[in-house]
Amino acid sequence: MSDLPAKVDIREVSLRDGLQIEQPIPLSAKLELLEAVVATGVREVEATAFVSPSKVPALADAAELAAELGRFDQVEFSALVASPNGAKRAIAAGLRSIEYVVSAADSHSRANVGRSSMESVAAIPDIVAIAHDSGATVEVIIATAWDCPFDGPTPPQRVLEIVDSAVDFGVDRLAIADTIGTATPRRVSDLVAQVRPRIGDLPLGAHFHNTRGAGLASAYAAVQAGITRLDASVGGLGGCPFAPGASGNIATEDLVYLLRDSGIDCDVDLQGAIAAAEVARTVVGHDLPSALLRAGDRIIG
Amino acid sequence: MSDLPAKVDIREVSLRDGLQIEQPIPLSAKLELLEAVVATGVREVEATAFVSPSKVPALADAAELAAELGRFDQVEFSALVASPNGAKRAIAAGLRSIEYVVSAADSHSRANVGRSSMESVAAIPDIVAIAHDSGATVEVIIATAWDCPFDGPTPPQRVLEIVDSAVDFGVDRLAIADTIGTATPRRVSDLVAQVRPRIGDLPLGAHFHNTRGAGLASAYAAVQAGITRLDASVGGLGGCPFAPGASGNIATEDLVYLLRDSGIDCDVDLQGAIAAAEVARTVVGHDLPSALLRAGDRIIG
Repeated sequence: MSDLPAKVDIREVSLRDGLQIEQPIPLSAKLELLEAVVATGVREVEATAFVSPSKVPALADAAELAAELGRFDQVEFSALVASPNGAKRAIAAGLRSIEYVVSAADSHSRANVGRSSMESVAAIPDIVAIAHDSGATVEVIIATAWDCPFDGPTPPQRVLEIVDSAVDFGVDRLAIADTIGTATPRRVSDLVAQVRPRIGDLPLGAHFHNTRGAGLASAYAAVQAGITRLDASVGGLGGCPFAPGASGNIATEDLVYLLRDSGIDCDVDLQGAIAAAEVARTVVGHDLPSALLRAGDRIIG
Repeated sequence: MSDLPAKVDIREVSLRDGLQIEQPIPLSAKLELLEAVVATGVREVEATAFVSPSKVPALADAAELAAELGRFDQVEFSALVASPNGAKRAIAAGLRSIEYVVSAADSHSRANVGRSSMESVAAIPDIVAIAHDSGATVEVIIATAWDCPFDGPTPPQRVLEIVDSAVDFGVDRLAIADTIGTATPRRVSDLVAQVRPRIGDLPLGAHFHNTRGAGLASAYAAVQAGITRLDASVGGLGGCPFAPGASGNIATEDLVYLLRDSGIDCDVDLQGAIAAAEVARTVVGHDLPSALLRAGDRIIG
């Protein structure tokens, strides 16, 4: 275990991935959650998405939220986009860190954004140009990197092709996402081992859902395999508790607990994350799957 | 990851650890659950405990349940005991595999069985004699191997002392148990690495709860560290959903899913485990924390 990193950077995604399938909540409630999230000490926050308001009504207030971000000057905020037009909107709203999602699986890509995986890849240069022209950065997030909800297993070769294209097109960061929460440690290790040699010094992140219980196990496997950037959501927000099979991101506080007890530093305070999870539970008005929110910390003696 | 074992043996503990803090259910309901559990293909089942009926009313029917086990001749049944007298009762009821719990932490030991950890260790020879005289085997399960709910962290040295005593006293198997669900992968790896060199060829198992979300991550770390025997409970049964901080064992079906996708064989059929989890949910009459019970298998294509 001596190859564990000294530090992992957590990106807090509750405001976007966490809230996107919830019933819309008022901007004031989002700001309350954001205050609690920033108070954890986290340095990167995925704030919202500039996508179709009719498809994702919970994030229809993206520009209004973006206008509030300037006061949190210690945090780097990112926004997810699905098209060059979304990137333009995000830049116009003041964002300087753009996440562009490319689904590795055609069926998911068509269901998600109405075009094929290859068509999504083809838009990367436009997005990069839009961002770089404004001094912003682009992270390509490869969705359904392990499995598609319709097609089943994603061929790793497909992920690697997207990785190569993204590197060629000059993106600033990459991430691989377990969109439907099916990954397990060995499959994570295997894919990370194939991706890392192809990306040079580009930062590589990973994004897991806990849908099949292995979210933290997969996150730890990713860290063992050299990943030092992980997405997480306070409370495990995300995924509707009333939809069979749906489930949230790995819970920030559960991840912080695991990292701390593995001797791995992160900027997020555990008690702060639990407090933010409590705010998340209040603003969405239902229970959340976080384990630490229920059980609390152990006695650390 | 080439050091992963080809196979892991799962012991199903829903009938004992799973049910022990539930409201008592009728023997007929236990037999319904047992039928479903046996149908998963599992080869080892912890059937009950011979302990104080007033302390654990849910298992007060231990002898009656034991009388029903003869028909499942493909399964090895074990029962937990907390004293030589319990061992005698288990043997008299026909059990041939005895689990004796020794808590490594004094405060938990006194709360659990009313005597110190050392006093529990001192009873090992009696239990071994009672079992071996009847052709039965003894497994010593070291409870609170990582943390005590009252004292905090358990010094690894304390676990190792118990391990050494148990080996000297001629036990047949050992297990280390994360009784309150606080373990994380690195702490698991560290303790397993210290225990294994001291036990020769004795089988070593591990037992995890998912109280802080890291149950599967810990189980996988144990397997990576050389453990090939894991306890699990269909549905993640165990732990009262109405008690803050309580949580069940790792769910059998979640573990089977992770093992399968890691290329590790086990005797348990995944769909069978999900079906047994459904029976568990029905007989206890409330929802269970299993992820697979909610989400189902992925498309394995």
